[in-house]
Amino acid sequence: MASTSEIRIVMEGVTGRLGTNQHLIRSLLAIAKDGGVALADGSRLMPVPILLGRSRGKLAALASAHGGLTWSTDRAACLSDPKNAIYFDVSATGGRFDRASEAIRAGKHVYLEKPIASSFEQAMALAKAAEAARVKNGVVQDKLFLPGLLKLKKLKDAGFFGRVLSAKLDFGWWIFDGEMHPAQRSSWNYKKAEGGGLFLDMYPHWRYIVDKLIGEMRAVTAMSRTQAPVRRDEKGVPYDVDVEDHAVAIVELDNGAVVTITSSWATRVAQEDMLTIQIDGTDGSAVAGLHDCVIQPAVATPKPVWNVEDATIHAAGVRDAWHKMPENEPFVHSYRAGWERFLRHVAEDAPFPSPLIDGARGLQLVEACHTSQRERRWVDLPAIAI
Amino acid sequence: MASTSEIRIVMEGVTGRLGTNQHLIRSLLAIAKDGGVALADGSRLMPVPILLGRSRGKLAALASAHGGLTWSTDRAACLSDPKNAIYFDVSATGGRFDRASEAIRAGKHVYLEKPIASSFEQAMALAKAAEAARVKNGVVQDKLFLPGLLKLKKLKDAGFFGRVLSAKLDFGWWIFDGEMHPAQRSSWNYKKAEGGGLFLDMYPHWRYIVDKLIGEMRAVTAMSRTQAPVRRDEKGVPYDVDVEDHAVAIVELDNGAVVTITSSWATRVAQEDMLTIQIDGTDGSAVAGLHDCVIQPAVATPKPVWNVEDATIHAAGVRDAWHKMPENEPFVHSYRAGWERFLRHVAEDAPFPSPLIDGARGLQLVEACHTSQRERRWVDLPAIAI
Amino acid sequence: MASTSEIRIVMEGVTGRLGTNQHLIRSLLAIAKDGGVALADGSRLMPVPILLGRSRGKLAALASAHGGLTWSTDRAACLSDPKNAIYFDVSATGGRFDRASEAIRAGKHVYLEKPIASSFEQAMALAKAAEAARVKNGVVQDKLFLPGLLKLKKLKDAGFFGRVLSAKLDFGWWIFDGEMHPAQRSSWNYKKAEGGGLFLDMYPHWRYIVDKLIGEMRAVTAMSRTQAPVRRDEKGVPYDVDVEDHAVAIVELDNGAVVTITSSWATRVAQEDMLTIQIDGTDGSAVAGLHDCVIQPAVATPKPVWNVEDATIHAAGVRDAWHKMPENEPFVHSYRAGWERFLRHVAEDAPFPSPLIDGARGLQLVEACHTSQRERRWVDLPAIAI
Amino acid sequence: MASTSEIRIVMEGVTGRLGTNQHLIRSLLAIAKDGGVALADGSRLMPVPILLGRSRGKLAALASAHGGLTWSTDRAACLSDPKNAIYFDVSATGGRFDRASEAIRAGKHVYLEKPIASSFEQAMALAKAAEAARVKNGVVQDKLFLPGLLKLKKLKDAGFFGRVLSAKLDFGWWIFDGEMHPAQRSSWNYKKAEGGGLFLDMYPHWRYIVDKLIGEMRAVTAMSRTQAPVRRDEKGVPYDVDVEDHAVAIVELDNGAVVTITSSWATRVAQEDMLTIQIDGTDGSAVAGLHDCVIQPAVATPKPVWNVEDATIHAAGVRDAWHKMPENEPFVHSYRAGWERFLRHVAEDAPFPSPLIDGARGLQLVEACHTSQRERRWVDLPAIAI
Repeated sequence: MASTSEIRIVMEGVTGRLGTNQHLIRSLLAIAKDGGVALADGSRLMPVPILLGRSRGKLAALASAHGGLTWSTDRAACLSDPKNAIYFDVSATGGRFDRASEAIRAGKHVYLEKPIASSFEQAMALAKAAEAARVKNGVVQDKLFLPGLLKLKKLKDAGFFGRVLSAKLDFGWWIFDGEMHPAQRSSWNYKKAEGGGLFLDMYPHWRYIVDKLIGEMRAVTAMSRTQAPVRRDEKGVPYDVDVEDHAVAIVELDNGAVVTITSSWATRVAQEDMLTIQIDGTDGSAVAGLHDCVIQPAVATPKPVWNVEDATIHAAGVRDAWHKMPENEPFVHSYRAGWERFLRHVAEDAPFPSPLIDGARGLQLVEACHTSQRERRWVDLPAIAI
Repeated sequence: MASTSEIRIVMEGVTGRLGTNQHLIRSLLAIAKDGGVALADGSRLMPVPILLGRSRGKLAALASAHGGLTWSTDRAACLSDPKNAIYFDVSATGGRFDRASEAIRAGKHVYLEKPIASSFEQAMALAKAAEAARVKNGVVQDKLFLPGLLKLKKLKDAGFFGRVLSAKLDFGWWIFDGEMHPAQRSSWNYKKAEGGGLFLDMYPHWRYIVDKLIGEMRAVTAMSRTQAPVRRDEKGVPYDVDVEDHAVAIVELDNGAVVTITSSWATRVAQEDMLTIQIDGTDGSAVAGLHDCVIQPAVATPKPVWNVEDATIHAAGVRDAWHKMPENEPFVHSYRAGWERFLRHVAEDAPFPSPLIDGARGLQLVEACHTSQRERRWVDLPAIAI
Repeated sequence: MASTSEIRIVMEGVTGRLGTNQHLIRSLLAIAKDGGVALADGSRLMPVPILLGRSRGKLAALASAHGGLTWSTDRAACLSDPKNAIYFDVSATGGRFDRASEAIRAGKHVYLEKPIASSFEQAMALAKAAEAARVKNGVVQDKLFLPGLLKLKKLKDAGFFGRVLSAKLDFGWWIFDGEMHPAQRSSWNYKKAEGGGLFLDMYPHWRYIVDKLIGEMRAVTAMSRTQAPVRRDEKGVPYDVDVEDHAVAIVELDNGAVVTITSSWATRVAQEDMLTIQIDGTDGSAVAGLHDCVIQPAVATPKPVWNVEDATIHAAGVRDAWHKMPENEPFVHSYRAGWERFLRHVAEDAPFPSPLIDGARGLQLVEACHTSQRERRWVDLPAIAI
Repeated sequence: MASTSEIRIVMEGVTGRLGTNQHLIRSLLAIAKDGGVALADGSRLMPVPILLGRSRGKLAALASAHGGLTWSTDRAACLSDPKNAIYFDVSATGGRFDRASEAIRAGKHVYLEKPIASSFEQAMALAKAAEAARVKNGVVQDKLFLPGLLKLKKLKDAGFFGRVLSAKLDFGWWIFDGEMHPAQRSSWNYKKAEGGGLFLDMYPHWRYIVDKLIGEMRAVTAMSRTQAPVRRDEKGVPYDVDVEDHAVAIVELDNGAVVTITSSWATRVAQEDMLTIQIDGTDGSAVAGLHDCVIQPAVATPKPVWNVEDATIHAAGVRDAWHKMPENEPFVHSYRAGWERFLRHVAEDAPFPSPLIDGARGLQLVEACHTSQRERRWVDLPAIAI
């Protein structure tokens, strides 16, 4: 039987919904349940979470619900304990820079939810600090591991598209305002002071998705709207929305392609999925949703006919002209996929796609969108490195 | 039996494909075959086309193929003949301003293909001249009469959308470059000197579609690409493309809504149709193609679930959540629909939706797109009037 | 962890089928199993049922089957015990007025199955007594919480119908007479002396459904039939039916709409469900069953064609013209939904839709139907209040 | 070859839409085209229409369009011509009594569109006059020959229903008011002075359908509404509606059954067809539309379950429990079917189902409905005979 070693991970902010469900239960505890992560040398690495937070009651309850996990309210103690190898932060964005900086200074490897800091400048500083400290570092980029996007990645790596010409990323659905139905998103998403707003929430995702699946961003023009200016909160009390809930952007890539991004919490889903990405290239096109991905190679591109008088030839024909990608890979939960890679990155220096500098790129885009919106012009996104 | 009167129409440039097929055969000759246009007083108006052009051979052949129509190569004579009531121009854009101006000076009613002139300035001058001369005037806006767009208009007029929030107009398909398959569009579309380019060809359509179905345009940011830089012409000879064949624009409307427009001759059709328009409003959304239109009222808006692990809930569920508009109106060919309205406008002052000033609005947008592309900024579209 | 308080409920008549299955097991015990009802202050309220009845054997058996519930045959003792907060009655209608009056005098909050009394006059007296005693009071109106009817309510609240024009309520199915198959309903339903009859059983439901989902009733004309004059009872013994098992009514509402109600235990189900309600309004129509609800907005109303010669266009086309409402809310058992509201009404004065005066309105309708049937004329339903 | 004789029919008012399309073209000319009606003796009877009216232009055009039919504007001459055997009237209801009386006095057989007169009293007088004059007489009852209703008739004649218990007749669809779409019905239908109103238009049909397919009417209570008080006419001009466009009636039959009739021009079709009739009997039930008819015999009546928690068992299960009647008879156009019977009635005294007294019964019901609506009570329909 393979030998197993443990790796202790300080998880801060894990009593929140995202932390508990995605990072703790469906990632680290699921990995543990399966006997840990398999390493290249045949041994297995067993993650041991240490719950860190401020509410003793919540921490104790969560720890107890999962078989008596270790928990603490003392960050300094956690970080000074040499047995703890990794610091993970899924707590509020405000203060993340300070918390992560402290962890880096303590020599911990750091893995952070996005946005990794409150500004691009902070994020760069953090990424540089991590590299200078020679600790492993990473930002959560769960959407890279969605089945539909994994298929896009395979197509890109295989050169399926030829020269990439353009792409359309369409995201969104209707978030109820609390009148007819309760809202599906928390009210903080709609309040600037609490870190809300569509740019800050979603554009870090668009940055890494576009950079890695289509081409590196070089310039952006963006504009936004507040479509639902008044909403009801979790208790039914009306409040004013002071952030954008709808945004459109055009992005230029370094490979010459142009990407149109429409993101909205005030649209009704008419595409195949809540997130769809179409990429057109000289040699072929693909459209991915969360799960599925369909392709149309150049050699099989039909010649559509603009025949208004024959209503029968349309939608069905359009669907038939696309070919569904097979399900060749088993599904791995997207947050867990990120954790498995990061753990192996720490343990055996396996490659990891999302260092903290990537988190800085996300914030670079967010700030550029705000500038573009304000100054009504294109804003460059110069290449950054450490 | 109802009385019938004749109306004579000088048609210039009608030997081209668009003129022959859409304007002559499927519009005026089809109307004549059905006994003319029914007027409000119960009488009927029979259109009599006079073919005007430069090639005697082509004109004679076309006239003869349709039962011996009258034809001429003498514009001055046609315009001075008091029996001729209407001048229609579907010849090359270059020179249209001069030809139409001459017709206006001769007191003819004018109906013109778009673009109505080579510049916004010229177009305004033309519209003003027509109004000053008190002649009836109009620009062809065939897409208004596409069945799918007529349904959108009914929805807008019925107040279905509530407050309009945003819209997405998606247009395009793959135009072969002449290597594997012959191109579906003429080579002049790809040459600046011949009036080519996607902005000039399609944006006049987007202007009137958006203005009339969604809200009046007030500002635009646009960018374009030449995706296929080298193509083969009708004879298989390669040529360089010096115009855009792909363009993206974001448009602000006076009602506060924002419209994203993606237009491309280098994309593969993945939407339901070659042109789709989604409009989202507080009270409901609609998606129209050339023919069909589906709606989703606010009261029937589902709560989609981002459940990556269950692949079965997606596309089918999305389709089921939209309701297809009924076919309550018989189909009328879209160019013919425009002609019927213009003839009744001339004969009995019936309302006509598309005076020449609308053609000027189209060119205003085209020029603003070029400016935006060049200067990388938003460009305003001030309201214009005569 | 949230604090939990108890609330003790005296349940009289709960050994019957309705009491045991719907009110005890699927309502109060199910609520208890889920940790009680969540109150607005974050605490939880745990219901504790006290079983009251006459048969010690049945009470003991039921109490024991559910983990040893408290039971009693002494109403006076139950009502004088200050720890008991609520009196609930699901025993025989005869005597309900006296039992409930006693509970009110004892200062208990009262929740009653319908009909709340044996006559409208008694019902009014009961409602007034409860209000005078300042106890919380309510009548069971479980059908309000059927999923299909909840959807109708959302449509009405959203103003979907515009001006309501008319409605059709169609209810019924075939109750076997005991010859070929055993009857599905108890024989008391068919005996006047035992409180049987379709008017008394179902019209209290129609009263609150119509009042709350369509508009308040103002006049009624009704007629009934005894379709199956002889039936076999639970033991197979024939008996004469002396109540109606089929009734039709036309109702005028204060909003001007007219409702047709057909109710029958001697019809074969040909509608989509055993209860269907169609509401037609200027802006749209809806048809609800127990679960589902389909809508047809005015803007998507088709133009049907009376074409007898083409059989293919009918039923399928009709179905396609209606759009199914989404399932945006989780299903809650309809009796439990009523209990949760009543418990919160008692505990924290949360709104409750069905005070005892509503029960009086139901009996007002029942008596008006009998009068209309007897006198063959319309009978007014004057607005009532305490 | 069989011998053929001619029968000349004076058709008054046949230039209207109903007269031209249904009675002339699709009935008499279609019969003629097929070589006439086959008589019992093996010979054939060829109908020869004589067009009678007031507009020489319209008559001449119609006559000429169908190969030169005989036409006239002189009623007296037509009626005095002994070669003409039958007088048929499809002209305006006003004056029908006088025209038909004149024809009877001239000894012509009479066949009349409904309503056969402007009042029940007139209608009775007309029926008596025809019988006294011993001329064959009939009223058009086309709906008897709808395929779906023919199937109901076969079921009734076969004793399928056992004792008939009740029936529901549901008729109607949405007539556009001329705002979003042009109205599908002529404006005269909505004007009292022009013979409009739903009672007068449709209730003569309901009388003969119910009398012949379910049981003879004996009493009625009815109420009506004007749902669309303002409409736009054929020219788009608004007008006030002064008749009912929605009516509900409950009818008692001499066989003890009760029929609910809902008729509306302001409802959206949710049943299987624009007209549906459900009949429930002790031995079985049937539901007919225009074409189709489904049955459920008592022996195959399912036991439905009121199970709100399982949404899957409903609509599909309901449909499956009904069995579609086969198409054993070729389709005959329903107006033609009436003509064929009337011609054979005249020529060889074959039975005819709809003598003028039936037309009087229709008007008896119409007047009773108006009385019931006005006096808010049941109105008897005493049996009538000559």
